[in-house]
Amino acid sequence: MIIIGELINGTRKKIAKAIADRDEACIGDLAKRQAEAGASFIDCNPGTVGEDEIRDIQWLIETVQAVTDVPISFDTPNSVALQAAFGAYENAATPMINSITAEQERLDEMLEFVAQSGANIVALALSDAGMPASADDRVETSLRLIDTLTGAGVALDRIFVDPVIAPLSTDATCGCAVLEAVRTIRQQRPEVHITCGLSNMSYGLPERKLLNRVFVAQGIAAGMDSAIMDPLDAQMMATICAAEAVAGRDEWCMNYIQASRDGKLTQ
Amino acid sequence: MIIIGELINGTRKKIAKAIADRDEACIGDLAKRQAEAGASFIDCNPGTVGEDEIRDIQWLIETVQAVTDVPISFDTPNSVALQAAFGAYENAATPMINSITAEQERLDEMLEFVAQSGANIVALALSDAGMPASADDRVETSLRLIDTLTGAGVALDRIFVDPVIAPLSTDATCGCAVLEAVRTIRQQRPEVHITCGLSNMSYGLPERKLLNRVFVAQGIAAGMDSAIMDPLDAQMMATICAAEAVAGRDEWCMNYIQASRDGKLTQ
Repeated sequence: MIIIGELINGTRKKIAKAIADRDEACIGDLAKRQAEAGASFIDCNPGTVGEDEIRDIQWLIETVQAVTDVPISFDTPNSVALQAAFGAYENAATPMINSITAEQERLDEMLEFVAQSGANIVALALSDAGMPASADDRVETSLRLIDTLTGAGVALDRIFVDPVIAPLSTDATCGCAVLEAVRTIRQQRPEVHITCGLSNMSYGLPERKLLNRVFVAQGIAAGMDSAIMDPLDAQMMATICAAEAVAGRDEWCMNYIQASRDGKLTQ
Repeated sequence: MIIIGELINGTRKKIAKAIADRDEACIGDLAKRQAEAGASFIDCNPGTVGEDEIRDIQWLIETVQAVTDVPISFDTPNSVALQAAFGAYENAATPMINSITAEQERLDEMLEFVAQSGANIVALALSDAGMPASADDRVETSLRLIDTLTGAGVALDRIFVDPVIAPLSTDATCGCAVLEAVRTIRQQRPEVHITCGLSNMSYGLPERKLLNRVFVAQGIAAGMDSAIMDPLDAQMMATICAAEAVAGRDEWCMNYIQASRDGKLTQ
């Protein structure tokens, strides 16, 4: 499972303050703990706009790469901030762009840069029609994005398609639709990565972590191999380990048994 | 979710002793607690053979129906014990036969009685070839059993087909194979019930309940609507509640929200 650690996000109050205060200890600690917990990428979302966003994402990248070699996910819709992020990035490991969408104007603006960057890319199944309404919508937009990216020279295994989760509290069919989309995309493009912003599923509902865990187990069975999530959630990490064993991605359950010996599965 | 409470099983040492001692308090308490926790059927497996089995299943049925109106699942491979079970059963609610298989000799012996009993039937996808080896094996045997039963006059909604789980520790592909079989059976026979002996998945592995929870979430997404399991496992029951919400079987998440208010989702 390729985990994109979501905790350094300036839309969270505590993180916004740490960014504004240039609190290296807070951000560095959060980066290190996510890396130690198993994050494959550390997402950095400044949560600001304009000139601030450019300065903030550069500072976040400098701060995170000072404490860990785990590659960074540049989380901004702003193409100028994105280019600044690449300018600040000095790590050898290939970073992630989070994200591009199928919204035509934004795609036209970003495609060439994104393709030539050599980075991994989260490709969000949002089009000019807005949020996808069905499994078919998700599949159609995802495949169109994948084909556009590969047409521009991006290898399939650099693409992390995200079929877009809506809150279950507003759309009871969203869980089924996303899982069906994941299965279809996995069948039609076996080599692409499939990720999700997991916690969107449970927005507005109680016991959110329980719903997120249930969904990750179902998503892994459907063919998801990545998630944008909190790697410090030990129960979630244990669920992923078990789901990979059940999905046959852990021969003889060796990882699962080792995780148990390491005390990582205790609930 | 139609839960078949599995705890009254004479292959468990404590239960074997309670049966041998005719300990009504122990068995009655286990029946009541499973019913209160949400079991739709109380399974009774004497775990003995021959004349003992006949006397034991009758005593179990008398003891359980004295404390709860929840129908009983008669868990015996012995057709004489099964007939004795029906003789002892006085509850108005339709009981369950657990189980018939596609093993020809046993099927020939039991089919007519089972069909005419009016009971619900667990139909286990075991044939004379032994344990199913693949998803296709499971689907083929399940559909053959379903067709044999409906041909004998059994309504689809009385049939609980069980695609047979093998331990993940001996067969890493079993989880995927069972889930694929569940999806195919659900597509081809939308009205049939699909159940599983959940805990077989985790046999021989650590943190068994974690694996069982992950599998039930995945099974519900695939179309399972029943399980043979421990209804006193509160984390399992919470997982089922969440999985039904994600599967779109809980409009506006009303059951989920109510379960949260009732304190049933706290992990």
